[in-house]
Amino acid sequence: MDIPQPYLLFLGDVTDPLAAKTARGIHAWRPQQCVGQLRIATTGVTLGLDDLTIEQACEKGAKTLVLGTANAGGFLPEHWLETIRQAIRSGMNVASGLHERLNDNVELTELAKTHQVKLFDVRHTQEKLKVGNGKPRAGKRVLTVGTDCAVGKMYTSLALEAAMLELNMNAQFRATGQTGILVAGTGISIDAVVSDFISGAAELISPENSDDHWDIIEGQGSLFHPSYAGVSLGLLHGSQPDYLVMCHEMGRPHTRHLPHHPLVSLADCIKENLRVAKVTNAHTELAGIAVNTSQYSDEQAHRYLSEISQEFGVPATDPVRYGIAEIAQFLKVHGG
Amino acid sequence: MDIPQPYLLFLGDVTDPLAAKTARGIHAWRPQQCVGQLRIATTGVTLGLDDLTIEQACEKGAKTLVLGTANAGGFLPEHWLETIRQAIRSGMNVASGLHERLNDNVELTELAKTHQVKLFDVRHTQEKLKVGNGKPRAGKRVLTVGTDCAVGKMYTSLALEAAMLELNMNAQFRATGQTGILVAGTGISIDAVVSDFISGAAELISPENSDDHWDIIEGQGSLFHPSYAGVSLGLLHGSQPDYLVMCHEMGRPHTRHLPHHPLVSLADCIKENLRVAKVTNAHTELAGIAVNTSQYSDEQAHRYLSEISQEFGVPATDPVRYGIAEIAQFLKVHGG
Repeated sequence: MDIPQPYLLFLGDVTDPLAAKTARGIHAWRPQQCVGQLRIATTGVTLGLDDLTIEQACEKGAKTLVLGTANAGGFLPEHWLETIRQAIRSGMNVASGLHERLNDNVELTELAKTHQVKLFDVRHTQEKLKVGNGKPRAGKRVLTVGTDCAVGKMYTSLALEAAMLELNMNAQFRATGQTGILVAGTGISIDAVVSDFISGAAELISPENSDDHWDIIEGQGSLFHPSYAGVSLGLLHGSQPDYLVMCHEMGRPHTRHLPHHPLVSLADCIKENLRVAKVTNAHTELAGIAVNTSQYSDEQAHRYLSEISQEFGVPATDPVRYGIAEIAQFLKVHGG
Repeated sequence: MDIPQPYLLFLGDVTDPLAAKTARGIHAWRPQQCVGQLRIATTGVTLGLDDLTIEQACEKGAKTLVLGTANAGGFLPEHWLETIRQAIRSGMNVASGLHERLNDNVELTELAKTHQVKLFDVRHTQEKLKVGNGKPRAGKRVLTVGTDCAVGKMYTSLALEAAMLELNMNAQFRATGQTGILVAGTGISIDAVVSDFISGAAELISPENSDDHWDIIEGQGSLFHPSYAGVSLGLLHGSQPDYLVMCHEMGRPHTRHLPHHPLVSLADCIKENLRVAKVTNAHTELAGIAVNTSQYSDEQAHRYLSEISQEFGVPATDPVRYGIAEIAQFLKVHGG
């Protein structure tokens, strides 16, 4: 899946800022790849980009219209179709993060064929996959892992890529979820692959590379999440990471959406991730801890980060509040 | 997926006895559910059952024609189609363990609709699945786990079901792979589900039950297999087993098909399975070890089994050579 950039970000007529999370993420991490936004209701959510028509976006070089908002149920609303048709007729590809597939819509697939453009359903997988083989491959890899879902693994991965590039390291973000795929323009939605192929898909996401190349792989779920641990484990095995960055939310009492399920301790979670990583990489180490401290004061956050940094012997930071330069520096020094 | 029994076992014209493994498994474990066999070449593999025509099988009450042989590539040979059509026209359902789906064949699906019978593709999943929730549910569960693929998890599960029934325990085999599904007439091919739903599928396979009911769940893969560990972990979390039976092959040097990957030690494998099982069941215990000792003499096998039985404090047996009554007895005594 290689989604041609730059993008025109389609915001439809959504009014809930949270529903535009994907579009906002793309804009935040790849502003140079966003020529503008297209809204069908000017009272809706805005990213502060220029409002463009399909025609204007084409003139500015947009290659793909991105449906970057979520709908209740993830379906494709009838009244968005005309904009999508227009984009296709103007020679733009269309990429969607919705559950409902563009590729299941016969009218759109035929129109796309006629105009020789592609439809990308980033929540689904279109790749031919193989089962994983666990064979070591050249290049260095960092995987973000977590104590839970929604603890900032994508944010941390993208922030780390940026910080490593700052240090002139050869770093590349590797996407495993829908927003990440749209940011990177490539990747595999790892939780959408047939379970036989989880680690095989992970091997494909971060292929062999030169010795000085770093893949920063976006993690998913948690080994301790009763719903998603299988995905997390297959991703860990297939990634063969040299380094892990553990993501965590300070003070979160229980696993997300599962109030009956207390959150694993940071220590147990780190130990277990390092232990199971050994199945495909005997030398996996922890490189840092990225913590969402947003519920706490600056002082409380600093005290906690300094405590866990001492306990685990690696930098600990809140990447949103304090950046992630320390972890990038750690990788530069230790990962040689 | 509820496949009506009894079956007529279709052997096609395969000549390699290994290719008839599925049919042989069904016959071995559910002889009373097999009215006969149908071959299109009498020089081919036989199970020693009566050779029946579709008509004769119908008279004997056969409800489903089972394609119980494997083909190179798993496709449906052209010259098998006439037998399948005949079966459908006679009101029989058809179940297939092939990769190629009966349900992708428009002619067969229409014929099946006309004659109001069902086509079952047991390697694929037709269920509506949910993500797992990890909530405890009533009933007792045993899961077979392993140091590798192909170490006898299905055999052990079925043998244990039989041994527990002998002891008048309320035991029920739960299938997670194609042969198991055909034996049980129900189940989900766990490695074919979308990876987001592994543990959810496992929860569906062994639903809430009465307190004295035992599910004997067929395990898949191994936590230490670089290709399939994600499936194994999701199955373990979703199964919430009260007891594990560890399956192992004595003397196997490396992970199957991966000569670069040494086999995990029995001790590490048991420890890790018990550790990760705690995510959804705080009280998981080991109930026994089932070992394939076929490469060793009787004396060597007995010495090894007695050693590991002492080391881990549970019965250890080769279920093929020595039966599995001891493990059933252990469950009866300890599992109340």
